[in-house]
Amino acid sequence: MGLDKAAVKPHERLAAALAPELEAVNALIRERMSSEHAPRIPEVTAHLIEAGGKRLRPMLTLAAAKACGYTGPYHIHLAATVEFIHTATLLHDDVVDESAQRRGRPTANLLWDNKSSVLVGDYLFARSFQLMTDADNMRVLRILSNASATIAEGEVLQLTAAQDLKTDEAIYIQVVRGKTAALFAAATEVGGVLAGADETVVKALFDYGDALGISFQIVDDLLDYWGSEQTGKNVGDDFRERKLTLPLIKAVAKADAEERAFWVKTIEKGQQDEGDLDHAIALLNKHDALEETRVIALEWADKAKAALSVLPESEIVEMLSDIADYVVARLR
Amino acid sequence: MGLDKAAVKPHERLAAALAPELEAVNALIRERMSSEHAPRIPEVTAHLIEAGGKRLRPMLTLAAAKACGYTGPYHIHLAATVEFIHTATLLHDDVVDESAQRRGRPTANLLWDNKSSVLVGDYLFARSFQLMTDADNMRVLRILSNASATIAEGEVLQLTAAQDLKTDEAIYIQVVRGKTAALFAAATEVGGVLAGADETVVKALFDYGDALGISFQIVDDLLDYWGSEQTGKNVGDDFRERKLTLPLIKAVAKADAEERAFWVKTIEKGQQDEGDLDHAIALLNKHDALEETRVIALEWADKAKAALSVLPESEIVEMLSDIADYVVARLR
Repeated sequence: MGLDKAAVKPHERLAAALAPELEAVNALIRERMSSEHAPRIPEVTAHLIEAGGKRLRPMLTLAAAKACGYTGPYHIHLAATVEFIHTATLLHDDVVDESAQRRGRPTANLLWDNKSSVLVGDYLFARSFQLMTDADNMRVLRILSNASATIAEGEVLQLTAAQDLKTDEAIYIQVVRGKTAALFAAATEVGGVLAGADETVVKALFDYGDALGISFQIVDDLLDYWGSEQTGKNVGDDFRERKLTLPLIKAVAKADAEERAFWVKTIEKGQQDEGDLDHAIALLNKHDALEETRVIALEWADKAKAALSVLPESEIVEMLSDIADYVVARLR
Repeated sequence: MGLDKAAVKPHERLAAALAPELEAVNALIRERMSSEHAPRIPEVTAHLIEAGGKRLRPMLTLAAAKACGYTGPYHIHLAATVEFIHTATLLHDDVVDESAQRRGRPTANLLWDNKSSVLVGDYLFARSFQLMTDADNMRVLRILSNASATIAEGEVLQLTAAQDLKTDEAIYIQVVRGKTAALFAAATEVGGVLAGADETVVKALFDYGDALGISFQIVDDLLDYWGSEQTGKNVGDDFRERKLTLPLIKAVAKADAEERAFWVKTIEKGQQDEGDLDHAIALLNKHDALEETRVIALEWADKAKAALSVLPESEIVEMLSDIADYVVARLR
């Protein structure tokens, strides 16, 4: 084979296998992000969409459809739909988190303003619903509109759980299922539904996406304390935003009285002084919170791979399995 | 008859005629604004939805469906859909405009925070799409998703047109068609589509909603300079937000050099001093800008009524016609 398998990252191999479809998805995204009357819209959207995201979610839709033998044109529309929902969510997230950087570039709310981010996000949500009607499949519409509601619900839950030291692992998983896994699961499920796959296969694709999304978010939350220049993550963002992510929840659960007072000060009251992030990381390490979180991320990746066993063997299903390994490979 | 027609406002008569349906719409709204996991969502939504809005848009959907002889249950779902889209838009508008009051009460962004308004608005958008899939009618889905995109496009256009003295009447009508009339037009159009009405009737319902929405917004923009305690409008909001609404556009078009300098200072540069609002209103009066705007609002209300001539005569169609009079009656 042309490329050394070990040397090429799984999402790049998947992208290569799906190259013509991804090209069509990109063309459709460019077409549908345009606006006859409001040039601000494609400006803001292009800033984000062309910033070199990995197109992981649309690839999942394309791969799921192909894995089920789909030969029609509409997996392209659904893949673009999924990317639009994702992009709209990012625009609104950056407003909510008051972020200044994403993917190493200034955020849209910084370059333009919060107003543009809110309204262009709304436009992309609406566009995503237009796009999905193209597939003319009512079940697909229900899955994607349910996912959109679940995402927003997860984000609101995260908002109210932030700064609250009573947040436990069950609430955390609920937040993650909402804000991240719902779109992964919908992305893969609609691929199967579009292809008219058996219900057991559709269910397996949902379970794969759900577990993959949970694993993906846990890794992300872990790298927020464990990151490096290599991972491109900005260490300490979640601490500064006082988010109760899994590593923190684990450390708080094992805190003695003095440590608890530290968490109350920094997370509940938001009084963060120099050196507090370092101290927080030291406490996470003391209680094995990072290592335990890593193990849980690996377990969800394994669940994702296990779900695929229902699907007929094929190169594309193997790649989906490799994607699950890739998501957690950022931890090595 | 029981109620003196002249003494009862048209939207109250329409509400009385649609009482059982409106009750069902309210029950459905309460059911669908709930959230199992995020109690913040119904809190924020109830604040806005139960704040005594007139339910004008959902009434239009109910009335349009009934005027076309619809007897099924799904006009209730579409009416609730329309109200959810409207409510989501209000939540995001108040963030964008940094508003502190709506309908005489503090806004959600003030009572909670901008984050909650953004995310709960997203939740309501997603819920609106779930609701519309209940009607199982792909054309209805297309109309409502197109309207949502048009609304967001209109809002973005308004954002970029604000502070820009080059904004002309054509751009203004484009903004108004987007941000306001698109939802009115979709609200009436889907009533006809759901009822399986003739294409000429569907078109007439669209034209009625479009003209009614334009008239409604022009009146709103006029009252922003012409309001009183009676109209419940806060005079001068648009001036402070430097929005180029129709009265201002007309006055700017007729401005001499000195007046132009005043508009450049207050609108383009945003340097507003005490007495500037009064001076602005004096200039609007000097150039008959308020009176000319009033005439245009009346013309659009007449267009709305004229569009209804295609529909078979009935009490409900008469009420729709009266609603057009009612919208401009705020000007008397």
